[in-house]
Amino acid sequence: MEINNDIEVYSRRIAQARAQLRAHGLDFLVVGPSADLYYLLGAHIRPSERMSLLLIPQEGPVHMVVPAFEAPTLPHLPQDVQVTAWGETENPARIVASLVAGQGSKPGGAHCTMGVGDRLWSIFLLRLQAELPRATFTSGSIVLTALRQIKSAWEIDLLCRSGAHADSVFGEIILGPFVGRTEADLSQEIAERLKAKGLAVEGKPIVASGPNSASPHHFTGERVMQAGDVVVLDFGGTLDGYYSDITRTVFVGAAPADNSEEERVYNLVAGAQEAAFRAARPGVTCEQLDAVARDLLTAAGYGQYFMHRLGHGIGLDGHEPPYLVQGSITPLQAGMAFSIEPGLYLPGKFGVRVEDTVYLTADVAVRANNATREIVVVE
Amino acid sequence: MEINNDIEVYSRRIAQARAQLRAHGLDFLVVGPSADLYYLLGAHIRPSERMSLLLIPQEGPVHMVVPAFEAPTLPHLPQDVQVTAWGETENPARIVASLVAGQGSKPGGAHCTMGVGDRLWSIFLLRLQAELPRATFTSGSIVLTALRQIKSAWEIDLLCRSGAHADSVFGEIILGPFVGRTEADLSQEIAERLKAKGLAVEGKPIVASGPNSASPHHFTGERVMQAGDVVVLDFGGTLDGYYSDITRTVFVGAAPADNSEEERVYNLVAGAQEAAFRAARPGVTCEQLDAVARDLLTAAGYGQYFMHRLGHGIGLDGHEPPYLVQGSITPLQAGMAFSIEPGLYLPGKFGVRVEDTVYLTADVAVRANNATREIVVVE
Repeated sequence: MEINNDIEVYSRRIAQARAQLRAHGLDFLVVGPSADLYYLLGAHIRPSERMSLLLIPQEGPVHMVVPAFEAPTLPHLPQDVQVTAWGETENPARIVASLVAGQGSKPGGAHCTMGVGDRLWSIFLLRLQAELPRATFTSGSIVLTALRQIKSAWEIDLLCRSGAHADSVFGEIILGPFVGRTEADLSQEIAERLKAKGLAVEGKPIVASGPNSASPHHFTGERVMQAGDVVVLDFGGTLDGYYSDITRTVFVGAAPADNSEEERVYNLVAGAQEAAFRAARPGVTCEQLDAVARDLLTAAGYGQYFMHRLGHGIGLDGHEPPYLVQGSITPLQAGMAFSIEPGLYLPGKFGVRVEDTVYLTADVAVRANNATREIVVVE
Repeated sequence: MEINNDIEVYSRRIAQARAQLRAHGLDFLVVGPSADLYYLLGAHIRPSERMSLLLIPQEGPVHMVVPAFEAPTLPHLPQDVQVTAWGETENPARIVASLVAGQGSKPGGAHCTMGVGDRLWSIFLLRLQAELPRATFTSGSIVLTALRQIKSAWEIDLLCRSGAHADSVFGEIILGPFVGRTEADLSQEIAERLKAKGLAVEGKPIVASGPNSASPHHFTGERVMQAGDVVVLDFGGTLDGYYSDITRTVFVGAAPADNSEEERVYNLVAGAQEAAFRAARPGVTCEQLDAVARDLLTAAGYGQYFMHRLGHGIGLDGHEPPYLVQGSITPLQAGMAFSIEPGLYLPGKFGVRVEDTVYLTADVAVRANNATREIVVVE
């Protein structure tokens, strides 16, 4: 089993990145501070106006280019990674260009192809483009996605433990109270409970009540919850960098009446979630899985109210490949982890979303969230 | 006085951005989720894998391109901003390209020049470059810096109130205790006290004790502080988005002995900080102000231990232009706000940094931090 504090993990990941560069005909991979960088080096570097870049060639030394005075804060790095520190009055983009020129497979690095990490700030890409005017710059996600979307057993374990903590928090907050409290107040309680379990939390848990539940990305606000509300709760945190992400929809005061629209919609969404979960296995494409849930909701006459994709990959980023969306023919593979989160949003009325994080084994999907998906009534 | 919740503020800022586009010969400005976007629209949008972009042409409608289901979460926008929502299966870069083609001063938008916000993720820039292969992409910071680096009275007020809260926290924590506590523990107390005053805090306050104080960007850790330590404390938060940033260096247990290196270095740094503060006025260039402090430290034989720039602008970003660094001939102007933070870092021994946020009036600098810069002894 992969142990993440073992320097060999990062050596292996860098070797895998080089193999992907060769496979895709890219000469270099350029990665800025991001989950990509953390994945490749185990280094937490906050993005800032001072350029920090990891430059991985197909062959030869890897360079971590950092501001000189931040070099001492780098963790122990794999043997083939060299630290290139730049001083406050130097031009780091020029330094990167000279490393490229000195190391590429093409003379002078002139016409090389540079894969760029998705979240590198544009200012740094523009500076590299200015210093390497004949190079071709393209997304490096083909390399990083190939690596990151297949989780090791160690990563799956973290995702599951992160998910279990989120499940526990759901179990705690449904003890209430909801009535008479603002969304923001409950959101803060959720955040505090997540932190108490050891998760890091950035951003605010979503608490979308009553008509607000009809907006998928509602900004949790000052609305006071009351009996009769439908409340969408969407939250998670990170454990050693690995995200949890769960959504449950609860009913305030009483269960929805038999055959009411609330009950019908809830059961449709929960049913679609279960159906997609059961259909998830290696070989099924992302858009096929999306269609499993979407077709059910459409057949029930609600298709137009499911206006977002079925789910997103999850790991060191809260949203990452694979994206379960119409148009993506990426086949699911063992080791992938992603959310399955169908939702229906009836404007002006209410919304329902049910979301679990799951991962794929060689033949089936396994849930990292196991909080009940039955109708829950809160006071 | 500018009132920030007034929609006219944003209309005016957009008009100023257009004027800057014309002045610099740029056809469009492209801004992603960032402080730039918040500055221009008052919209808080978290960066995500779904493209959200503000597209500002020299003339004609401004477009806020967002995922369809996030459109309802946008704030009230100025009249000349149109919301262009894209569905989950559309290609937003192509939508932006068609807006450019339909609106640029050049036919088809083919050869237009696009200014790009510094912090837009590279993946979005690469997609725009692919859709607009004959356009020229360049940094848009020439536009945004011109606007953002000159603060209004309303912004200055927020910076000063944010700074005053940080000052208060310094006043509280020097009551101690320091001895026997870890850096991390004190860091957490600082963060909690900042939050208690209404500041938002991201990242950890720097607490660098003993030999750790010799690293300018030390990662606050588990070292236990003890008598005899020099401790660098560097922290701040945001008030309505506007940062505070203060550094003080304190002595644990006893004041440094007369004529000790600790005392000499402390007085040198505090003196350099004061000298730079007094020299700061409109017309002085960034590198000239840096040199005021640097020359003093160099003359005392410590120049090589001041290995970072003198300071950075501050506002909606913690670090933003102007940067007080050798090589920058940008003249300081009234309304600019920046840190003045000389430091000396003696490897293996200790470090001292003293930092205030200041702003410029028409003739002098004014401090937004007023916590004492005298030698402080903590227990």
